[in-house]
Amino acid sequence: MISKNLIKYIRSLELKKNRQKEGVFVAEGPKVVGDLSEIYNPERLIATEEWYKANNKSARPQDVTVTDDELKKISFLQHPQQVMGIFKIPTHTLDISICERELCLALDRVQDPGNLGTIIRIADWFGISTIFCSNDTADAYNPKVVQATMGSIAHVNIIYTDLNEIIENKPANALVYGTALNGTDIYAQELTPTGIIIMGNEGNGISQQILSKADRSLFIPCYQKNKKADSLNVAMATALTCAEFRRQTKNSDSNKQQKAE
Amino acid sequence: MISKNLIKYIRSLELKKNRQKEGVFVAEGPKVVGDLSEIYNPERLIATEEWYKANNKSARPQDVTVTDDELKKISFLQHPQQVMGIFKIPTHTLDISICERELCLALDRVQDPGNLGTIIRIADWFGISTIFCSNDTADAYNPKVVQATMGSIAHVNIIYTDLNEIIENKPANALVYGTALNGTDIYAQELTPTGIIIMGNEGNGISQQILSKADRSLFIPCYQKNKKADSLNVAMATALTCAEFRRQTKNSDSNKQQKAE
Repeated sequence: MISKNLIKYIRSLELKKNRQKEGVFVAEGPKVVGDLSEIYNPERLIATEEWYKANNKSARPQDVTVTDDELKKISFLQHPQQVMGIFKIPTHTLDISICERELCLALDRVQDPGNLGTIIRIADWFGISTIFCSNDTADAYNPKVVQATMGSIAHVNIIYTDLNEIIENKPANALVYGTALNGTDIYAQELTPTGIIIMGNEGNGISQQILSKADRSLFIPCYQKNKKADSLNVAMATALTCAEFRRQTKNSDSNKQQKAE
Repeated sequence: MISKNLIKYIRSLELKKNRQKEGVFVAEGPKVVGDLSEIYNPERLIATEEWYKANNKSARPQDVTVTDDELKKISFLQHPQQVMGIFKIPTHTLDISICERELCLALDRVQDPGNLGTIIRIADWFGISTIFCSNDTADAYNPKVVQATMGSIAHVNIIYTDLNEIIENKPANALVYGTALNGTDIYAQELTPTGIIIMGNEGNGISQQILSKADRSLFIPCYQKNKKADSLNVAMATALTCAEFRRQTKNSDSNKQQKAE
């Protein structure tokens, strides 16, 4: 049985201001809740009998058991999936030196929740553990974003910050790569195994101020004969960019070791 | 002014059986209708005054001028965009020899309209002019697919057919590449500038019968440390696969010329 107050509370978490006030976000479905639960202890679970049984779990005092019909009332999904979890919004400490040791992503005003979720999923696939988001990028804890990550939000540290400061304070030997239509062919240059790749807004790309501070500017070539294709979607461009960085540099650590021997 | 009959007719085109009976499909918005109109003459346009004016067009006898409110009644979009066009479903002749001269895609039971639309957009970006679809792949002329292509459906020939027959009848020197989790690292093998790349169903991949007929099987490596990432979405996998084919073979024509000189 679910109380009216709990229904109201959960629905209120659709809005960023309420998530920030409460310090929590909502995840849904066995896959996403499962991946998050392996890393973060859920504040509260709202699930069907079926889910508790399938997962060998019993409801804790703060958890709620619901029917499918009750779940429909609180779910943000068109087709609710057995379980909702309320999790604390993780606070990741900003360690800018990480871009000297790892490849990181930075997002400048990415607006579409589906794109942001897909980018987080891509980062996870490519073993990128940190995404810096400009403060005006969509909120990663929006229920639509959380679902689009398919659980990858559990594995990637997302840090909202001023990208200007990130670039100004990064270690000198970590390169910053911008992506822009007038950049240099990504397949015609040598990429580094560490640094920061900046992806820009869906309509306008990376802001001029940020782009002017990048060390290099990358461009993904279009192979269409008459170049009529619409520009690449930002999530697709992120996937192609990350793939080329990994392809070029995947053996860089072992190469270094071999050279050192 | 739009008649009740026309409203009913357009709404009926949401269903594949009605599109096939009438031999037409619907496209919406200035970008998609514009790209299609450059190649196909629209059977009928339903547009606002504003659109006709902006495009320097006057309504032909079969066209209809509507208000924004009327457009809302017939649109398949949440936010209707000035114009709807009704186009004949193109009939492309099946020329299997094309995979000897060009790189082609084949889709085996891709189900999600958004994925199919994105794949058509990706094909366009990578200069792939032909997609063979298994007869049980989602219909490319579904309004959701048409919109997701962002106009690229105008530039790509989509042919529904039995993929078994395609593979059996293709020229012997055109390679067929399957994509599968137990394939060989795509970045560790030499790819050809022509042939057929097969992409499979969202949940189940390529059917065993088709996969067993492929000459080579490709796999996109995951770089996540503990390999917990969900498998790649099929549209994303298509983009990464096409990018690697183009990267490896983009100079193959000029290379051949240079060698011949």
